[in-house]
Amino acid sequence: METFDLVIIGGGPGGLSAAIYAIRAKMNVVIIEKTGLGGQIAVTDIIENYLGFPSLSGADLVGHFETHVKSLGVPVKYALVEKITKEDGLFILSLGNEKVGAKSVIVGSGAEPSKLKIPGELEFTGRGVSTCATCDGPFYRGRDIAIVGGGDTAVKEAIYLSRLVKKIYLVHRRDSFRAEKILQERVLARPNVEFLWFHKAVEVKGDQSGVTALEVQDVRTEAVRALEVHGVFIFVGIVPNTAFVDCDKDAAGFIKTNEKMETSVPGLYAIGDCRVTPLRQVAVSVGEGAIAAVSAGDYVSELEGTAYAGKAKSK
Amino acid sequence: METFDLVIIGGGPGGLSAAIYAIRAKMNVVIIEKTGLGGQIAVTDIIENYLGFPSLSGADLVGHFETHVKSLGVPVKYALVEKITKEDGLFILSLGNEKVGAKSVIVGSGAEPSKLKIPGELEFTGRGVSTCATCDGPFYRGRDIAIVGGGDTAVKEAIYLSRLVKKIYLVHRRDSFRAEKILQERVLARPNVEFLWFHKAVEVKGDQSGVTALEVQDVRTEAVRALEVHGVFIFVGIVPNTAFVDCDKDAAGFIKTNEKMETSVPGLYAIGDCRVTPLRQVAVSVGEGAIAAVSAGDYVSELEGTAYAGKAKSK
Repeated sequence: METFDLVIIGGGPGGLSAAIYAIRAKMNVVIIEKTGLGGQIAVTDIIENYLGFPSLSGADLVGHFETHVKSLGVPVKYALVEKITKEDGLFILSLGNEKVGAKSVIVGSGAEPSKLKIPGELEFTGRGVSTCATCDGPFYRGRDIAIVGGGDTAVKEAIYLSRLVKKIYLVHRRDSFRAEKILQERVLARPNVEFLWFHKAVEVKGDQSGVTALEVQDVRTEAVRALEVHGVFIFVGIVPNTAFVDCDKDAAGFIKTNEKMETSVPGLYAIGDCRVTPLRQVAVSVGEGAIAAVSAGDYVSELEGTAYAGKAKSK
Repeated sequence: METFDLVIIGGGPGGLSAAIYAIRAKMNVVIIEKTGLGGQIAVTDIIENYLGFPSLSGADLVGHFETHVKSLGVPVKYALVEKITKEDGLFILSLGNEKVGAKSVIVGSGAEPSKLKIPGELEFTGRGVSTCATCDGPFYRGRDIAIVGGGDTAVKEAIYLSRLVKKIYLVHRRDSFRAEKILQERVLARPNVEFLWFHKAVEVKGDQSGVTALEVQDVRTEAVRALEVHGVFIFVGIVPNTAFVDCDKDAAGFIKTNEKMETSVPGLYAIGDCRVTPLRQVAVSVGEGAIAAVSAGDYVSELEGTAYAGKAKSK
């Protein structure tokens, strides 16, 4: 079984940043990625808020990241991590029939926004359908948009977006929000938000230019109407990819860490979107990757120190 | 008095990242910088660990950052903030004779490594003299270096650097370290570290190629010897630029925050090197800037919500 000082699970921005720090610290490191490098940004239309790159496609930004990591010779292994266990202080990662050993592990396996599973949703993702207000809101200045959802995120992002866009239709299945009371009060006070209670989204319509309308249905009367909007923001939950690892998580499955990115398991770190975090952004993941790699380096260095001390004593 | 939604103090990587997030959220924002944009990296020789930029000078990286921020139209004001006070929920910043108002403030005023104040130290900074092992250590693979200092940072970085370089001379004025016991044990066990107890650094020698030697003196005998090294790492403390602001700080003056970058004062945030942080790196500051700007946006939005509710009630 091949064994590494550090295995990084996930080749998103956080994992790639961690890899740079680890290889520069001369750690024996590998990135294990299930599909392709870049994570969520690989499928992002335009990114304008990662400092140093004014405006470029997600794919282009991933290209810059990949060039950087490959220039340092970090190996990437394409495989799905099915399970992590810890035996005698060593992590064992199960990848199908193969096993890989690791003195330390950084989990940067990301999270995925839940989908509505309605026609047009996938087709227009990145061309009017978005799941990130901070990322895409500024592209809809002075235009009309719809928001789907009624939880904290939907309401919080409606408040944020109401400062940027002309008008918002807030589409929610129920007649009240699940969001915090203070958020509810604030969104209800916004002059440019129209509330469509008891409505669900049924289809995203569009053409070559992108989204042109969102069809919604009144769940009581079943009446359907089309909202003329250029953007549809969907906030109906987010699911972390963390089922393969055992450590302290919140109710939704996001991994809990301290500010050194340490989880409840010594030698195991979590970064980026799969972590309980104040903000899911490329910039944040990149910073967390750096911190986690330094923490993992300290941990492995200490392991070696302990082993050395033990050996010295037994002589 | 001109009043802003957000004033960002310091145009380093953290402040610039915060500015991008704030302006995209349509906040009325200004950066106040005392000297020039970029902070510590502006005087850094080579940077290889900010994801997306494989290897470039600090000045070139600052150029990319500046282009990004200016493309979004963020104003920069060159002035020294002498004092921040808070009156009726509004921050007042004193800049000499001028005053600026702010609904929220992000402090990203940085920190400076303490200097030895010996000949050659400034001259060879960035050409062999370094205060950051994570940044510059990898440039000394297979070479000999000296480290000056005896605290936690000096000893921790000696352990880190001992994995990269051929040999380390650890120069310390006393006969024991102030560092944590476990760190001491680990550094004493490294085979390629030679300890020069009771020694102080007296001069950095070099030529066009950079550092060639560090002259050290035995404080007991006053005997001077030259250590043939290509790198001199100085870890004798770091001082944050935080005297102008009142909020909870640690004993050394670094500002305490939670993971939303909130300080003990509502509406006041701290990011980057001036903060109590696990790691002082560009990547980390950039992530923290993003978080602080979103937190400040939420705060200002809530202020406005409160004002609105108050006004509605009084009618």
